[in-house]
Amino acid sequence: MKNYALGHPVNKLIHGCDYNPDQWLDRSDILSKDIEYMKKAGINEATLGVFSWSAYEPVEGEFHFEWLTEVMDRLYENGISTILATPSGARPIWMDQKYPEVMRVDGMGHRNRHGFRHNHCLSSEVFRDKVRIIDGKLAKIAGDHPGLIAWHISNEFGGECFCDLCKEKFRDYLRKRFNNDINLLNHEWWSSFWSAKYNDFSDIEPPYQNGQNALMALKLEWHRFTTYNYADYISVEIDTIREASQNKDIPITTNLMQRFYDIDYRELAKKIDFISWDSYPKFHNDLERYEDTMMESAFDHALLRCLKKDKPFFLMESAPAHVNWMDYNKLKRPHVHDQFSCQTVACGSDSIQYFQWRRSRGGAEQFHGAVMDHSGSTDTRVFRDVAYTGEVLGKLAEIEGTVKKNEAAVIFEWDCWWSIDVSGGFSRHTKKYDVTCMDHFKSLIPFGVEADVISVNDDFEDYKLIIAPMLFLIRPETIDKMKRFVENGGVLLATYMTGYVNENSLCYEGGFPGDGLKELFGIVNEEIDTLYPSDRNGISMDGKTLVVKDYAELIKPIDAEVIGTYTDDFYKDTAAITCKRYGNGKAYYQAARLLNEDMGDLVRKILNDAGIKIRDLLSGIEHHVRYGDDHIYEFYFNIGEEPAEVSDLDGTDMITGDTVNGSVTILPRRYLILKK
Amino acid sequence: MKNYALGHPVNKLIHGCDYNPDQWLDRSDILSKDIEYMKKAGINEATLGVFSWSAYEPVEGEFHFEWLTEVMDRLYENGISTILATPSGARPIWMDQKYPEVMRVDGMGHRNRHGFRHNHCLSSEVFRDKVRIIDGKLAKIAGDHPGLIAWHISNEFGGECFCDLCKEKFRDYLRKRFNNDINLLNHEWWSSFWSAKYNDFSDIEPPYQNGQNALMALKLEWHRFTTYNYADYISVEIDTIREASQNKDIPITTNLMQRFYDIDYRELAKKIDFISWDSYPKFHNDLERYEDTMMESAFDHALLRCLKKDKPFFLMESAPAHVNWMDYNKLKRPHVHDQFSCQTVACGSDSIQYFQWRRSRGGAEQFHGAVMDHSGSTDTRVFRDVAYTGEVLGKLAEIEGTVKKNEAAVIFEWDCWWSIDVSGGFSRHTKKYDVTCMDHFKSLIPFGVEADVISVNDDFEDYKLIIAPMLFLIRPETIDKMKRFVENGGVLLATYMTGYVNENSLCYEGGFPGDGLKELFGIVNEEIDTLYPSDRNGISMDGKTLVVKDYAELIKPIDAEVIGTYTDDFYKDTAAITCKRYGNGKAYYQAARLLNEDMGDLVRKILNDAGIKIRDLLSGIEHHVRYGDDHIYEFYFNIGEEPAEVSDLDGTDMITGDTVNGSVTILPRRYLILKK
Amino acid sequence: MKNYALGHPVNKLIHGCDYNPDQWLDRSDILSKDIEYMKKAGINEATLGVFSWSAYEPVEGEFHFEWLTEVMDRLYENGISTILATPSGARPIWMDQKYPEVMRVDGMGHRNRHGFRHNHCLSSEVFRDKVRIIDGKLAKIAGDHPGLIAWHISNEFGGECFCDLCKEKFRDYLRKRFNNDINLLNHEWWSSFWSAKYNDFSDIEPPYQNGQNALMALKLEWHRFTTYNYADYISVEIDTIREASQNKDIPITTNLMQRFYDIDYRELAKKIDFISWDSYPKFHNDLERYEDTMMESAFDHALLRCLKKDKPFFLMESAPAHVNWMDYNKLKRPHVHDQFSCQTVACGSDSIQYFQWRRSRGGAEQFHGAVMDHSGSTDTRVFRDVAYTGEVLGKLAEIEGTVKKNEAAVIFEWDCWWSIDVSGGFSRHTKKYDVTCMDHFKSLIPFGVEADVISVNDDFEDYKLIIAPMLFLIRPETIDKMKRFVENGGVLLATYMTGYVNENSLCYEGGFPGDGLKELFGIVNEEIDTLYPSDRNGISMDGKTLVVKDYAELIKPIDAEVIGTYTDDFYKDTAAITCKRYGNGKAYYQAARLLNEDMGDLVRKILNDAGIKIRDLLSGIEHHVRYGDDHIYEFYFNIGEEPAEVSDLDGTDMITGDTVNGSVTILPRRYLILKK
Repeated sequence: MKNYALGHPVNKLIHGCDYNPDQWLDRSDILSKDIEYMKKAGINEATLGVFSWSAYEPVEGEFHFEWLTEVMDRLYENGISTILATPSGARPIWMDQKYPEVMRVDGMGHRNRHGFRHNHCLSSEVFRDKVRIIDGKLAKIAGDHPGLIAWHISNEFGGECFCDLCKEKFRDYLRKRFNNDINLLNHEWWSSFWSAKYNDFSDIEPPYQNGQNALMALKLEWHRFTTYNYADYISVEIDTIREASQNKDIPITTNLMQRFYDIDYRELAKKIDFISWDSYPKFHNDLERYEDTMMESAFDHALLRCLKKDKPFFLMESAPAHVNWMDYNKLKRPHVHDQFSCQTVACGSDSIQYFQWRRSRGGAEQFHGAVMDHSGSTDTRVFRDVAYTGEVLGKLAEIEGTVKKNEAAVIFEWDCWWSIDVSGGFSRHTKKYDVTCMDHFKSLIPFGVEADVISVNDDFEDYKLIIAPMLFLIRPETIDKMKRFVENGGVLLATYMTGYVNENSLCYEGGFPGDGLKELFGIVNEEIDTLYPSDRNGISMDGKTLVVKDYAELIKPIDAEVIGTYTDDFYKDTAAITCKRYGNGKAYYQAARLLNEDMGDLVRKILNDAGIKIRDLLSGIEHHVRYGDDHIYEFYFNIGEEPAEVSDLDGTDMITGDTVNGSVTILPRRYLILKK
Repeated sequence: MKNYALGHPVNKLIHGCDYNPDQWLDRSDILSKDIEYMKKAGINEATLGVFSWSAYEPVEGEFHFEWLTEVMDRLYENGISTILATPSGARPIWMDQKYPEVMRVDGMGHRNRHGFRHNHCLSSEVFRDKVRIIDGKLAKIAGDHPGLIAWHISNEFGGECFCDLCKEKFRDYLRKRFNNDINLLNHEWWSSFWSAKYNDFSDIEPPYQNGQNALMALKLEWHRFTTYNYADYISVEIDTIREASQNKDIPITTNLMQRFYDIDYRELAKKIDFISWDSYPKFHNDLERYEDTMMESAFDHALLRCLKKDKPFFLMESAPAHVNWMDYNKLKRPHVHDQFSCQTVACGSDSIQYFQWRRSRGGAEQFHGAVMDHSGSTDTRVFRDVAYTGEVLGKLAEIEGTVKKNEAAVIFEWDCWWSIDVSGGFSRHTKKYDVTCMDHFKSLIPFGVEADVISVNDDFEDYKLIIAPMLFLIRPETIDKMKRFVENGGVLLATYMTGYVNENSLCYEGGFPGDGLKELFGIVNEEIDTLYPSDRNGISMDGKTLVVKDYAELIKPIDAEVIGTYTDDFYKDTAAITCKRYGNGKAYYQAARLLNEDMGDLVRKILNDAGIKIRDLLSGIEHHVRYGDDHIYEFYFNIGEEPAEVSDLDGTDMITGDTVNGSVTILPRRYLILKK
Repeated sequence: MKNYALGHPVNKLIHGCDYNPDQWLDRSDILSKDIEYMKKAGINEATLGVFSWSAYEPVEGEFHFEWLTEVMDRLYENGISTILATPSGARPIWMDQKYPEVMRVDGMGHRNRHGFRHNHCLSSEVFRDKVRIIDGKLAKIAGDHPGLIAWHISNEFGGECFCDLCKEKFRDYLRKRFNNDINLLNHEWWSSFWSAKYNDFSDIEPPYQNGQNALMALKLEWHRFTTYNYADYISVEIDTIREASQNKDIPITTNLMQRFYDIDYRELAKKIDFISWDSYPKFHNDLERYEDTMMESAFDHALLRCLKKDKPFFLMESAPAHVNWMDYNKLKRPHVHDQFSCQTVACGSDSIQYFQWRRSRGGAEQFHGAVMDHSGSTDTRVFRDVAYTGEVLGKLAEIEGTVKKNEAAVIFEWDCWWSIDVSGGFSRHTKKYDVTCMDHFKSLIPFGVEADVISVNDDFEDYKLIIAPMLFLIRPETIDKMKRFVENGGVLLATYMTGYVNENSLCYEGGFPGDGLKELFGIVNEEIDTLYPSDRNGISMDGKTLVVKDYAELIKPIDAEVIGTYTDDFYKDTAAITCKRYGNGKAYYQAARLLNEDMGDLVRKILNDAGIKIRDLLSGIEHHVRYGDDHIYEFYFNIGEEPAEVSDLDGTDMITGDTVNGSVTILPRRYLILKK
């Protein structure tokens, strides 16, 4: 039942880091200490070559890879594996000078200049050719190195380009999408609005800042096209690597990011062999409790992990200390690095990797935290924290390849997110699709329940409970799947703003939630009230009043049972939460947004209905499980501010080796990992 | 004494809506239900063709009007009149592609791209020609349709263009304005400042964001030119319609907007036959009371109505429900639609029209409220509210054509507004010319007094009291008019920031208020203190202390009576409010800005002096009157939060038909309409 | 021991103003009153010709100077000297039309248009040639006028240009700076980061907004280049004036500004003969006490004065009333103008000059305060205040040429400021280098101690105490100077963020503070905690707790004495303030930012150690001294809100002529000036 991120066990959890020896090629003193200190810190992997293009090819056609193989050799000799990045995250200057088309054009139509990173047009064939050449060379030279365990394509894809090449490609994309039928596009985009009709696909322009912004579907489709172009582009890199490498089995990934808006990651995930991502929680901020930061981190892990649900992911980057790009770059407090790292493993990661091994002396990230700071000393708090994590990961090695099995899932859809955002109406300040999905995920944690975060295209039958917050954009096939899911005994919770538009952001006729969902939920939405931040309403349920903010739909029950009613305003006493038995299951509809702290009562109800075992944990305890072939690994994190006792425990404490039976008190920011 | 917006009675109040059948031409089911449901809602007018250019002329020179006449026929057969818009509010795509000059250029000099609406250069002769063609065709085809009651030119004019054509036109405009005398312009613009002298009119550029911004008069004149160009442009459309229509008597309007900054509406008003405007109050917001929102609505109606004081206006657009472009798009609470609609009639409208009949399925306004929402059902709160308004309007039909007669007026001047705004100094956060005029208008309401909102070019002799807040820019002829007005017995109230500059934003010499106003008011302004938002001063008057914020002028009485003095700071005990008998009247000067709630004492004083009958209404009651040939129509709105008793009533309740004599208690958000 | 700003005594303090008769050439009535009223106000100097280019040369090659000499003659005849500005602060329109290269290009690469002021490319040889011509003519015509006492180059230099000419000049500058060695530049700029390596100097572009922003050193060097270009440019003007003038002895200045970011003023100061600057404190604002505004004014004077420490400066501009460009342009309260003017003299100025004599009737500054306002009257509060200042300055005439001798100094470095700002990390909201230096300066005032504000290139041996706040960027030679200073008995206080980077913003290796400073302070910095605004920590010192905000370094003492420790968080009880005896002196390290009101205890300690006499003044008293050949001039300002008694006084009150011995009570906003 184990499954391995890399396709095979490496018999350890990866403890690695981004490593930029190309910044120190004239400093053999530094390079030799790097190896020594990596071993001291328990580092067993180094990610090389991110942004090394100008080191490889400083002048067009002149290549230098010696330093790379030397470093890989030395790492390998010292038991440190390599993940090798392709260098396309930043271009050497000669390329921008000779081929300006490789630089992006912004939303006003102005071409960027050489500089920073990620500033390339993905449509440019010149750029793609240059990437093919460098990737091909790299694969030939390093692709069968015994230390190489994975390829890492480019870096943190993101952004968009409005150049003429992208414009043409967008038109081609649309021709395919709409069967070359401009009338179909006009209908679906409702371009009769404001005289916006197109006569031909060649009429269409990207949504420039100073151009067409009245067609929601144009903006939505531009997001989809950007995803399409990233997926198309990453194939170029992947195919080149595969083709040029002697070893065709080295798995390929790319480093993804937190709740990242620009790209539907599910399309990228299809192209790569395993998921890896870069996590930088804003610990100790002034907006929320540490507890919230941790639960949000759990959500982020779940979202990314579920891009490939059947196997562990890698945490490709994390900060051993602070970062340098937040508004306030505060230090991680004691135990936080340790707890966060173990939470990451608990959430399904088989690696803890750092950006970065050693701080660069100059450049934009010279004050970004690293394992090694400018002092060059290992006698630092951060180094000790990292080395301790190395030890802990050593004790958890057998967890490698174990998987997650969750009974609950929260739906999260990129095109729903985009569609809500491009739509006029409601309040642009409070739509917050991603945060709302996260809040529903978090609502399960106090009950000891961990959820997957899935797509509408995932298999619903894996779950007993599905929560679909704000599923604004919905396709007929999703509606069918939902019905079948409930019919077969599943419990489904949907909310306000469900089923408003189809896949082209065209409103459903006949009342929301659209097409068939009214039948499933047994209600129809009459109107939606958008509240000001200071407005509040309430929902009375089971004798309690739950506080409502931001959105309240006025719904009319058709054949649903009303289980909660509004307490205030002109829609007082009307239905606010409903439940309909449908087949063997139940379909809940929550018509208003609740304060996070008031979500528990409804959650308990649906968990019970779904037959999911509630583990009533003390507030402040977060619980995760990984499943191996013979063992179960249970994780308990005290993310609160007080010591917390957890009971009904049975197993072996993987850190101490002690047998645990009964209750254990866990201190704040500490944890317990039990093997059963 | 009745006067009709359309030039003749239609024997009803118009209850209409924007209607876009061109979005549904493939949906005969929808189109036929539209007629049925309009009748159910009491709709008797539909506004067609706003934004229909691409439906009329999808390809250059290829025209399709069949659908329009069909719809007009069907509406007419069902008793529903048509107001027909010209389609110039948005251009079909072929025009932008073939003639890029029709698209606007922004303040940085970058040309916009095809898209959104209102994005055309008004100076482009190509654009004007294309408009002439389409308007001419439209007028020929529909201009004598029996259902046509009015023409509606384009849509919500606004914005400005910085292209070379506009630049040339601006120069021509200035040549005329300054008699081809560049020295005169240099003197009036004080261009010796910062070496900004022009040698020739061809030197002058519009005030580009990255160009000349040091000459206040340039910026002021650019505003005037933009108005000039709109007026010039609308003549093209009006002349075309007039010329091409068989029926030359159909009146023409254009839909104006709330306190709209870009255009001096008085210049547009001269071109059109009756006023219509689009009102979208921000009901139930988190900044102010409902009462304030309603009083501000009354001000807005008065400002727009007084563009043509002698006749009723039309409310061309309003939201039957919420809109989609506010920060928070909250639902209208019960009775609000009804009360607002009747207030609109009370303020002089002969129509209540909606944007829009039916929501578009896609596009930027798919979530803007409409009579018919996406459900397609008439069993909705909004539909019922609209239908009820239809009933009410039926009962008020005889009010059509009745007019207003107010004894008080507040002066509101666009070029004063612009001049204050372009001037350096004071505080850009608190100048608020428009709000200040509105606040003075509101200050009269608790006394049962309704004011006109007039221009300095209107006839002052119609009034007993004129309030001229912040009349910063003032011309000698206005000063003379003011003197004559007071001399003849009028009461005039002016405030801080009166008479600082002439029509070219050039400061008056010899002390403020400029040229002759010192004689009228008997004071001279020494300095103006600009307060921080947290600063407060007070004015002691008649034993009370009124609270001062934002601005306090230090004035020196010459021969005025001091009736209020400052209570604090280094100008404590100096004059703050003065009054001078001048001829048979009185000239008041209020040297500081008062809190709204502290304006009443001074208002009572000036009303008494002016001999205007005070009707001491309970707080929360708003009172309006319309005058017919034989009847007077009195309106009482309870805009407060508590039931309120109104006494001294005598007449017939037009809604119930009951005779009313004595006192009536009106519930919050309800009203009483009496015919006497 | 006296030293004169102008190189020779004028036997008075200058009381002057910007004067723009070229705006009134058609108004002989105004011009003649100007002279009369200047004399009435005690004005003895007028600054002419700022922005007069279009008056001198309205058309290319056509010159008009008659009006200038006439005005200078008339002023001179009336005992009023002239400071003559070169007119390059704004260009006449013909230049921009014929030679567009003279207009600046913005950070996006778009060329500005004609308009406003200061909008010229300093690199343009065309612009420089035109300046040479006009300056040459001006010097020939007016350079030996008997009324001329100084030249004033251009106006308030600032801003930057990104045109191709500047780009080329930047590359040349870099070639020199890095010995034509691109590898050296690559190393120092750490351009291996993100593949940013340059192959040639011709590859380098300025830091365009949409270009290279990942290299901190590029941005830092761009600031230095901008300074270099200003210094290069001002030489053109100075050389032209010197060469063309018959009288080569007229001193030259340019008017500088408050804590001005764009230019390292020390480079400009080298070019000019005496310092002058424009001071506009934001009196009576809603953020701080009047007391703070005054102390900040003292800091600003000290910073500017110390650009040429050995002589007095001129206050070239100040507002006799309010200004027009602040958010809220409040009036100066009574006595403030007087107190501020005397403070300026106390801080080392030999002049009080105004912007401006008479308000312009139009243009961007028509509502900027002036001696004469639009009323044309001298019977105004402002005129009387100015005239009173004239009287006071008359009584203080003998102070001319006296100098300052301070025993304490605060280091302020422009490239340190830039380097902190361009660095990622910490918090961009709270770095506040300039404010921090000011706060340390202010911390000395309650002890009666006045400090110089110096460069690291100034002579440290002049001082007993040096405070070096946040000396982030530091050169090895500065480190050596600091060591020698302490070794020789000096007391040095450094803070968090000391010695992080070298002159190219490259981090020091081996731990902060870099290279040798660890030895001097006896500590090493382990990490820096960046606090959120709501976070607080404390430092326990001598039984008191001082409050910490914003930044707290975790430091490790090597051989320093710990004199304060943190009171909270995970670094509780670790060192926060240390002191190390080094040679005959002491090196203090303050590892965290303290609240201003909590800085006193440490300050008292270091003052005592430094052997600087503490004059324990009541809170609210600010004390300054100027030293003449035979006399000392002591200034006491009550900047608080309560009357304050000052004791131990001895001398003659220069305003009243009374002998003072013992104690005097000074009222708020009043002062005492004693001659001893």
